[in-house]
Amino acid sequence: MKMYDLINKKKHGEILTAEEISWIVNGYLSGEIPDYQMSAFLMAVCLKGMNVRETTDLTMAMAHSGDILDLSAIEGKKADKHSTGGVGDKTTLVICPMAAALGVPVVKMAGRGLGHTGGTIDKLESIPGLRTSLSEEEFIAQVKRCGMAIVGQTAQLAPADKKIYALRDVTATVDNISLIASSIMSKKIAAGADVIVLDVKTGSGAFMQTLEEACALARLMVQIGEAAGRRTCAVISDMSQPLGYAVGNAIEVDEAIRTLMGQGPEDLLEACITLASYMLTGVGRAKDEAEARKLLMGTIRDGSALQKFAQFVREQGGDDSYVFHPERLPEGSCVCELPAWEGGYVTSIRTDEVGMAVQELGGGRATKESRIDFGAGLKLCKKLGDSVKPGETVAVLYTNEEEKLKDASLRLRNAYTIGPVPAEGKSHIYGVITGDGETIVDEVTENAAFIQNRDQESRGQ
Amino acid sequence: MKMYDLINKKKHGEILTAEEISWIVNGYLSGEIPDYQMSAFLMAVCLKGMNVRETTDLTMAMAHSGDILDLSAIEGKKADKHSTGGVGDKTTLVICPMAAALGVPVVKMAGRGLGHTGGTIDKLESIPGLRTSLSEEEFIAQVKRCGMAIVGQTAQLAPADKKIYALRDVTATVDNISLIASSIMSKKIAAGADVIVLDVKTGSGAFMQTLEEACALARLMVQIGEAAGRRTCAVISDMSQPLGYAVGNAIEVDEAIRTLMGQGPEDLLEACITLASYMLTGVGRAKDEAEARKLLMGTIRDGSALQKFAQFVREQGGDDSYVFHPERLPEGSCVCELPAWEGGYVTSIRTDEVGMAVQELGGGRATKESRIDFGAGLKLCKKLGDSVKPGETVAVLYTNEEEKLKDASLRLRNAYTIGPVPAEGKSHIYGVITGDGETIVDEVTENAAFIQNRDQESRGQ
Repeated sequence: MKMYDLINKKKHGEILTAEEISWIVNGYLSGEIPDYQMSAFLMAVCLKGMNVRETTDLTMAMAHSGDILDLSAIEGKKADKHSTGGVGDKTTLVICPMAAALGVPVVKMAGRGLGHTGGTIDKLESIPGLRTSLSEEEFIAQVKRCGMAIVGQTAQLAPADKKIYALRDVTATVDNISLIASSIMSKKIAAGADVIVLDVKTGSGAFMQTLEEACALARLMVQIGEAAGRRTCAVISDMSQPLGYAVGNAIEVDEAIRTLMGQGPEDLLEACITLASYMLTGVGRAKDEAEARKLLMGTIRDGSALQKFAQFVREQGGDDSYVFHPERLPEGSCVCELPAWEGGYVTSIRTDEVGMAVQELGGGRATKESRIDFGAGLKLCKKLGDSVKPGETVAVLYTNEEEKLKDASLRLRNAYTIGPVPAEGKSHIYGVITGDGETIVDEVTENAAFIQNRDQESRGQ
Repeated sequence: MKMYDLINKKKHGEILTAEEISWIVNGYLSGEIPDYQMSAFLMAVCLKGMNVRETTDLTMAMAHSGDILDLSAIEGKKADKHSTGGVGDKTTLVICPMAAALGVPVVKMAGRGLGHTGGTIDKLESIPGLRTSLSEEEFIAQVKRCGMAIVGQTAQLAPADKKIYALRDVTATVDNISLIASSIMSKKIAAGADVIVLDVKTGSGAFMQTLEEACALARLMVQIGEAAGRRTCAVISDMSQPLGYAVGNAIEVDEAIRTLMGQGPEDLLEACITLASYMLTGVGRAKDEAEARKLLMGTIRDGSALQKFAQFVREQGGDDSYVFHPERLPEGSCVCELPAWEGGYVTSIRTDEVGMAVQELGGGRATKESRIDFGAGLKLCKKLGDSVKPGETVAVLYTNEEEKLKDASLRLRNAYTIGPVPAEGKSHIYGVITGDGETIVDEVTENAAFIQNRDQESRGQ
């Protein structure tokens, strides 16, 4: 096989065989195929596409480029979840303890912040002492002991994906659905869970800006997961505004803990319950979504999810007193309120810009080497559809470096649009795609009804 | 400017500015832009294209990446010609002395063999002593003294093109019309001639396999040349069979010399007269094509073109006795005739395979370091439309390494198709594109008439 011929084949829109794709992935990882040939190939993939079969083969080749975690020492079906990345997305911190409290083993490898989106590992590290870097043995032992573990990805997990991703990142070949899906799924498959629940975000704060794109990505990932023998489903959720009110690191841990205490924002709770319910039905812990929702709400009511989170923190070396006293978590010493510049209603929020404002406050990394200010972040006081009086506080910003407040406030101010007409607040869940079928509700109004029904159902329990 | 953004721009099919293109060319040449970004960009160009303005800007940026030859020391308008590459194409060796004999200064930088096509420099080096590597000063002095020079390209000529071409060659980004046109024209523009005559080949032995592709490339190159202030025209000629009968190095020099002696094959002579006539009208040495053809035929009749070629060989250090006694040129000591395996008519010749057969005989380079066997080559005895009796000689092969005869004969045999129905021999010139307009004759029959008229004209003189 010659890389030249395979580049040429894809350039002419032809379909590659599984053998050819595997040869490319392994050849690139070993260094036999140079960067300049791989980047030409990736650009051809971006512009000519790959079909589902090719994408699945690419995923499997990348998954098998390193260790495939053997989780057989953990009894029962293991569940994992993954979000395509959003702003204020702290669902992992709520979902994992809820599911684990119900006896579902949760194995979660998480990432760090990327661009305008935060990362679960960065958030968790705002709890003093907590270790997110475990060996494979420690990871398995932690799940056996505690029922859940959340750790950073090891270098042995899908190393070909890591190398290819780094190249895509500098050659403008990131935004292709096959490359995105295979990158995510190769890591999920290598991480070994039996049940994979995907949270695919759409809207101004997501990588997939339209519902159509998000559904296409979700569908493709479900197809790949099912082809790899994993029970896979994808929830399509809205990211046209941040999830909950808190955006940052410690401030998001705080909001997650309060949600586990039963004091969380509605949109966040709804997202967590929906995602976790598919974990429960996936592993067979609940017979249907209604039963799953009832069980999950119970873990909050009886405090078992909070206790599980405390145990998780403790067993991964963290100080669990912060779980019971989240007000002790780091909070920036410099605080600034953003007052409304006019009255009316919040009609849009540029969610990626909200994420960038947190970056500017010190809550993200400008370069790989940057240190994160765990106390940096912001609390939104107004969300889509809310009415605002002139001078009323729209958001509160926190940082430990006062000079950062000015630019971040300005950016946040520009992220908000206040208009005279009350806009409907978008609801959070657009639908679900499973290996068996899909339910997608496109219209905001219909969607509202769809959610409402489910709320009534869960209230009815 | 960031290369990432420019790759992304082209990937989305947007138009780049002159400044952006120049920044890319210079950044790549200096090493600031790495190969892997450039190859992704080139693939995006292949799949999204460049418009004429972008292609012209790319050409000019590459032309200005090194020295632009200053030919002002040579009096009068200087002419250059370039062929897109064919098999058996020895026109340069005939055209340059004809034009120079008529007082047109000819400045020709030529290349070496590439793939299945031969190179003028390789052919010329089969004349003992002839130097093809001259300094800029020597080159200019040679043209002033002799009226013509044919030399290899210097490293200072369009170095960005050289570097980009090497990358395209290993990343399957060769066959894009804008990249091909800019690569050719950047060197022609840097080489400094006032009049550029392009010979664009089409057919089984050419890089542009269809007339449509050849015309598009020709049109683009003429637009670029004219935009750069050079009088440019392109002749579209057929390469569905080799030009003349000889294919190789010394054997082609022999055929060229015999053409200068008035004993050359008709198709070769016609191609040379047509191309050279546009040199003459371009520099103003003839008022129209008819006058040019008459003058050119005169240089063969009166021996002045042959004398000019002998002078050129002598002044570039070669032994001019070979010009008057071409039978002394190197000829392979191992000879093999290919007999016809059946009777009928030659209905097609895979011209690229004929070129590859010469490669196999030792007439080309397998790698950059290979040495050429100047005596290797072949002489076709049968061309398109010719009738063949079983056992009659189709071609004669020459080499100095006997073991090479077998494979080369087999390849040549497979390149020929002999059928029962007489096929019309294709005629050689499809038309001409100039800055003022174009004449393209597509149909073989019409084209035959078109050529015939011109033959009558030239016979009439």
